[in-house]
Amino acid sequence: MPGQHINHPHVQLFNYTLHLADNSLVMGHRLSEWTGHGPMLEQDIALTNIALDLIGQSRNFYQYAATLKGGSETEDTLAYLRDAREFRNLLITEIPNGDWAKTILKLFFFSTYQFYFYQKLMLSPDEQLAAIAEKSLKEVTYHVRWSSEWVIRLGDGTGESKRRINTSLEDVWPYTGEMFEMSDFCKIYLPDNEVNEIKKAWQQKVKDVFEEAMLTYPAEENVWMQTGGKNGIHSEHLGYILAEMQFLQRAYPGCEW
Amino acid sequence: MPGQHINHPHVQLFNYTLHLADNSLVMGHRLSEWTGHGPMLEQDIALTNIALDLIGQSRNFYQYAATLKGGSETEDTLAYLRDAREFRNLLITEIPNGDWAKTILKLFFFSTYQFYFYQKLMLSPDEQLAAIAEKSLKEVTYHVRWSSEWVIRLGDGTGESKRRINTSLEDVWPYTGEMFEMSDFCKIYLPDNEVNEIKKAWQQKVKDVFEEAMLTYPAEENVWMQTGGKNGIHSEHLGYILAEMQFLQRAYPGCEW
Repeated sequence: MPGQHINHPHVQLFNYTLHLADNSLVMGHRLSEWTGHGPMLEQDIALTNIALDLIGQSRNFYQYAATLKGGSETEDTLAYLRDAREFRNLLITEIPNGDWAKTILKLFFFSTYQFYFYQKLMLSPDEQLAAIAEKSLKEVTYHVRWSSEWVIRLGDGTGESKRRINTSLEDVWPYTGEMFEMSDFCKIYLPDNEVNEIKKAWQQKVKDVFEEAMLTYPAEENVWMQTGGKNGIHSEHLGYILAEMQFLQRAYPGCEW
Repeated sequence: MPGQHINHPHVQLFNYTLHLADNSLVMGHRLSEWTGHGPMLEQDIALTNIALDLIGQSRNFYQYAATLKGGSETEDTLAYLRDAREFRNLLITEIPNGDWAKTILKLFFFSTYQFYFYQKLMLSPDEQLAAIAEKSLKEVTYHVRWSSEWVIRLGDGTGESKRRINTSLEDVWPYTGEMFEMSDFCKIYLPDNEVNEIKKAWQQKVKDVFEEAMLTYPAEENVWMQTGGKNGIHSEHLGYILAEMQFLQRAYPGCEW
């Protein structure tokens, strides 16, 4: 949406930081829906821990974004009082969980993206963003390991598990393109060649895991990819997430009771 | 329900261990309903972490209970495949969360009970139970601190917060008696005098926190107290919790997909 944003670097840094915060918050919130519903106690706890890691990351980004606003916002106003149109999360973070296979696949694609992306962000001239990325990388490394093990377990599992993960792959794949798509605020902080490096590393990792999981890597050419999240154009799903997540803050602003 | 249980110590140890596991699982599951709904990101994360601690405790107890059955059960079959009538959790763990004040109060009462109870359990001649109690005590200490700070914040807060916590107190207080009530399986492992020590310590702690919170400690005499959970007599609420929690395991037994 060129023209809508003031192209001042400070504004773009704010937008960029919010984009990173929103990714983690929305993904974390989605995953937390599994709490108490996982297939096994152990996996239930693992997924909830991953959700907490992501919500923790989002807090770090929101806190930094709030300082960029000079005190007119807090982490909570940014998380709880913006409308869907102002959220800049990738669409892959907001689509419904579906079954276990779909949740695993979404998490695997997203975590692998975060894994390579945070390694670039660690080298950012912006020291705050670099510090958050560095702090988060250890968590994300675990998320990638945990989700790839599940992709392999489901892909190379029973007929039913293979069928389910293949169905999920058709659903989720069109949401992977947006991760490597540039937007106004990304361009400033991530040069094209770095995005390409992240994309190549991501593709290689997915190919490796898919090979072990006996899954067919989807065609890269001529595939229509979803887009819009980075610019605030969301699916109807985000509205429902926000309604649920923001209810309390909006009903009791500031929660001063 | 005397007569329903075989009074063999091994059976009673199994029941006792299940009671401890069910307490933590049901309380943890209830608290996890707040994930993504807390009043602030920080408190949301704190409560989810507490829920995870409790679910982790329940796993330790279920794993031990499964070994007592000699391999015919696993932690997951015990958590996911028993009916409400077989659950031995205290009723305070299953009643609905209500608003933030009620959730806080339930957690404060329950955590304070666990805090004193686990200190006795640490000295149990049963080494496994003693080890789980010792491992859990550090977590529970934090739960008590966190929830008492909130009780004080709400009690000594605004008119609205004081009104809410007082309303919650009327709701929750009748569920505190069951914590100190003996049952067949408790009697073997916890002598009367130790239960009385736990009860006195609990009352003193609640009085201290209530004093700081400017709340009136309820009358102890002639108060009708709820009972039944330890013997499998539950409110209708447990059925809904289990329906939600057990759906996946029952729909896909063993989750072999």
